[in-house]
Amino acid sequence: MARMQHSTIREILKITKRPEIISFAGGLPAPELFPLEAFRESLNQALSEDSTGCLQYDVTEGYPPLKEFLCAWLSRHGLSCKPEEMMLTNGSQQALDLIGKAFLNPNDRVLVENPTYLGAIQAFNAYEARYTSVLMDASGLLMAETEQKIRKDHPKFAYVVPTFQNPSGITMTLERRKAFIKLAQKYKLPIVEDDPYGYLRFSGDIQPSLYSVAKGRGVVYLSTFSKILSPGIRLGFVIAPPEIIRALVLAKQAADLQPNSLLQRAVYCYGKNGHLDRHIPFIIESYRQRAGTMLAAMDRYFPSSVRWIPPEGGMFIWCMLPNKISAAKLFKKALAQNVAYVTGRVFHANGGGDQTLRLNFTNSTPDQIEEGIKRLGKVFSEAL
Amino acid sequence: MARMQHSTIREILKITKRPEIISFAGGLPAPELFPLEAFRESLNQALSEDSTGCLQYDVTEGYPPLKEFLCAWLSRHGLSCKPEEMMLTNGSQQALDLIGKAFLNPNDRVLVENPTYLGAIQAFNAYEARYTSVLMDASGLLMAETEQKIRKDHPKFAYVVPTFQNPSGITMTLERRKAFIKLAQKYKLPIVEDDPYGYLRFSGDIQPSLYSVAKGRGVVYLSTFSKILSPGIRLGFVIAPPEIIRALVLAKQAADLQPNSLLQRAVYCYGKNGHLDRHIPFIIESYRQRAGTMLAAMDRYFPSSVRWIPPEGGMFIWCMLPNKISAAKLFKKALAQNVAYVTGRVFHANGGGDQTLRLNFTNSTPDQIEEGIKRLGKVFSEAL
Repeated sequence: MARMQHSTIREILKITKRPEIISFAGGLPAPELFPLEAFRESLNQALSEDSTGCLQYDVTEGYPPLKEFLCAWLSRHGLSCKPEEMMLTNGSQQALDLIGKAFLNPNDRVLVENPTYLGAIQAFNAYEARYTSVLMDASGLLMAETEQKIRKDHPKFAYVVPTFQNPSGITMTLERRKAFIKLAQKYKLPIVEDDPYGYLRFSGDIQPSLYSVAKGRGVVYLSTFSKILSPGIRLGFVIAPPEIIRALVLAKQAADLQPNSLLQRAVYCYGKNGHLDRHIPFIIESYRQRAGTMLAAMDRYFPSSVRWIPPEGGMFIWCMLPNKISAAKLFKKALAQNVAYVTGRVFHANGGGDQTLRLNFTNSTPDQIEEGIKRLGKVFSEAL
Repeated sequence: MARMQHSTIREILKITKRPEIISFAGGLPAPELFPLEAFRESLNQALSEDSTGCLQYDVTEGYPPLKEFLCAWLSRHGLSCKPEEMMLTNGSQQALDLIGKAFLNPNDRVLVENPTYLGAIQAFNAYEARYTSVLMDASGLLMAETEQKIRKDHPKFAYVVPTFQNPSGITMTLERRKAFIKLAQKYKLPIVEDDPYGYLRFSGDIQPSLYSVAKGRGVVYLSTFSKILSPGIRLGFVIAPPEIIRALVLAKQAADLQPNSLLQRAVYCYGKNGHLDRHIPFIIESYRQRAGTMLAAMDRYFPSSVRWIPPEGGMFIWCMLPNKISAAKLFKKALAQNVAYVTGRVFHANGGGDQTLRLNFTNSTPDQIEEGIKRLGKVFSEAL
């Protein structure tokens, strides 16, 4: 517990809830895109078709018809798994917690990307993990450094977000995925693949999941309905070999017994009625526009010494300020101009990243994006 | 993880789902009493009044209007607290997990009643707790033994279910509550008071919570909507001093970020529309009848050497078989007669209890109760 800290992002979110602020700080989906009517119908349908099931205790593993639906849905996205290889969780965050609970002992090392997802660090910190961080280039984790650090640190597992990474927006190339799986299998390093954004691609070619590349061997795959339907309903899923699922089920029984009976059935109705497939392209189209607006505004307003990697999907753009410019110091100046981002340091498991920052493009309108980036550009230009 | 075990009760529940079995094994509410239409209305109202709030990310502490409603509702039940002293959880089970995560180190001792709630043992086992168990009489924990064991074992905290305990059905008397609080304060022993059943009293006098007796000092109070509304919606709440709430909020951020946005708003609508107050008496009346039917049938069919303590509320009746009769051995014979219970051994943190068993009276109809107890009586009589 001593190692847990308040979620910096959630604290920033409190500040940036002030209506005059244009916030690129959060990781929130665009609320105006929530499929309210379709989801309301699905909830009512679930309550009509199985009222007792919606309100009663249920199995820990997850509602079987939802698992079957998801297996079929995932197979159409190139991921092949069976219901007994799946468990439902309260968003991906709970999967990270249960993985920590089931597999981490104090001082175990987790190999992570540098930068990496803050929520994963928080989840694993609760089990007193340490971190081996490996740099990325625009194609993902650097393989030579990965191998060297596996040999040196003997991490318990690797935690990676290979597609539209949070915070960097980087997507691992197919070649790099194959090399990483080969390396992981050589050193018997289990991989936890977190894929909350993979279904939100607005440009470039689809890459197979690490799970698919490895044919499921040695990879635990996490995803969630948070970004493709709603984060407020707290539903995610884990795919792993049955013996891993059994360990995670034990951990979930101890943690909170079971996933939500009602919302699992509502999401099942939502999916089987075809809403998931109809709605995702609608989200993607909006995010393509917003990312495009942000990237164009960055080209226009940011000093040329500020660098970034244009993402092909997801929710974030990662910026690197030139040497010696602290993103944390500029944050105060940005906030004075009523615009917010997240400083990159919080995403670095072992410190560093002071010149980096994360911009979210999904939770602001194109007009807000244009105006916010203009203001940020002014703040950056004045500091350089 | 090595200390976690499959939930015996949840495994038994799988067996006893066979329709021909009369099951007194589970701890499930009567599904025919679920307030389906009122809750459906509340869900739709929440979606209409705050659609974005229902589907978007939200604060970890819980939806503020629900917390305010709950504080007012609890004050009418004699429990005084403020919103900043409250956090929402995924049922009480998650509160137990978060308490373990925030406060237990390996080999810390938890003082528990003997027998105690199995889910608490499972939650604390994940943090490698050990247990100091103290016997109860019909008035609750034995005070002399409690004091002696506090002095000997120095437990980190006490975990108790003082009202309609699971599994024993025992309710701690007011005198015993006062003595226990005095003892806890003398030795600075924090108390975790788990109260899932306290609002389901069908006879006898209302007892104040330990939290109320102690005026909140040194007591963490847990309760849940599982037994008074629906367990499938996975909503419970913790009341504790603000500094404890802050620690639990950190633990919940790491565990699964936040409680369910949609269901918190639905339960808020359900409560503010008066449904909670209207519905609970309806549940109580049904459970009074079912407990009465079970107790009368036990009087009629059980051998006189089988003993039990008639509960004044809740969901369970605890039975003690005469010497040397194993409840586990009789379980197989009972199952052959298509009737099931839970053997008492699983509720004993440090072993023992082989001659005890738990009967649930809420998830069977009066006719099933009559027939099931008749069959059990035959099994018991033949074994004695």
